[in-house]
Amino acid sequence: MSDVTIWTYDWVPEGPRGFVRDLRLRWACEEAGLAYAVRTIPFDDRETNHLARQPFGQVPYLDDGGLEMFESGAGLLHLAGKDDKLMPRDPVGAAQTLQWTIAALNSIEMVTVPWWFLKMTGDEDNELTGWVDKRLAQLEAILSAREWLAAGRFTVADLLMADVLRVPTVRAFGDRPASDAYVARATERPAFKKAWADQLALFEAADAMRAA
Amino acid sequence: MSDVTIWTYDWVPEGPRGFVRDLRLRWACEEAGLAYAVRTIPFDDRETNHLARQPFGQVPYLDDGGLEMFESGAGLLHLAGKDDKLMPRDPVGAAQTLQWTIAALNSIEMVTVPWWFLKMTGDEDNELTGWVDKRLAQLEAILSAREWLAAGRFTVADLLMADVLRVPTVRAFGDRPASDAYVARATERPAFKKAWADQLALFEAADAMRAA
Repeated sequence: MSDVTIWTYDWVPEGPRGFVRDLRLRWACEEAGLAYAVRTIPFDDRETNHLARQPFGQVPYLDDGGLEMFESGAGLLHLAGKDDKLMPRDPVGAAQTLQWTIAALNSIEMVTVPWWFLKMTGDEDNELTGWVDKRLAQLEAILSAREWLAAGRFTVADLLMADVLRVPTVRAFGDRPASDAYVARATERPAFKKAWADQLALFEAADAMRAA
Repeated sequence: MSDVTIWTYDWVPEGPRGFVRDLRLRWACEEAGLAYAVRTIPFDDRETNHLARQPFGQVPYLDDGGLEMFESGAGLLHLAGKDDKLMPRDPVGAAQTLQWTIAALNSIEMVTVPWWFLKMTGDEDNELTGWVDKRLAQLEAILSAREWLAAGRFTVADLLMADVLRVPTVRAFGDRPASDAYVARATERPAFKKAWADQLALFEAADAMRAA
């Protein structure tokens, strides 16, 4: 019996498999050893049937014993409040973890996601490229000097930053060995591997159901 | 004597005045009645002399009695932990405030900022326009049904969302009366007016210094 339920789609196309953001919450639960269940909402018509629970029609949606919240970043910070494996409890370590979690969402992902969205829609050399290059270079400088972003150890900030950086379009952009090694360190963790394999298995099972 | 120090630039050009993100932290301190000091770092050469404290060369930078952190969103959540005027203390109210704070950073600003950046660089009808339109429409639906985003009252989530939405390029895009009224409600608060006037006064004083 688990109190934590992670809601995701019941199926997605090939492209986003392994990258749907329920993975962030699965990964956090695996790191912390928190029991959790995964439940699904229909991917089809997600923007009508899902809007009552999530105003932007997105996943994941977290339910912690009846306490419901959307936004993967918010879910991660909420889970970090449940177990200090995800965020240290000393004020400095907690502040560093919070700042790097927000940096992943608002200084890195805010540039990388619109950038690869534009590339995907055919605007290969779009005007965000220079901005992305600058941000990734600044981050490379940081990651050249430390193993993890905050508090001298793996935290939820690394979980999120590594998930932002592991996107293939981002990894293929520029030669950034420290960032490459950082993403490898994070994604070699057993908790990531379990979360990733479980997400793929869910969508493969959905394929089988659809084919039947 | 105040424990909270907000670091910002000593000068900025006309364009960003009233929108530099130290305003978010000033506003939060004003709402909570927290004493604070404002100190400045040189705007010129910000990307070299400031990188030791802020890896992306940005402001603001918050110092709370020696506890230092960057990212305005992180600073807001940190300040919200100091006073319940910014975030309710009941679990549901706190979770709602957290989710909407992250939504402002990662579901709205992640689309609006790159969008107006592209417009500023001359790409007026860029491919992000449809995405921005959809997100703002989803938010308009939410704001048509409630006065504030979380917990039935003003929270730090509204402070942040209103700051994201009050950008003139965003306000000028589409007819969204509920969002207009929401931004007006937030920016008519005395705490916003004080924070805004104080930021403008700082940069005007800097003009006078430069001219002298």
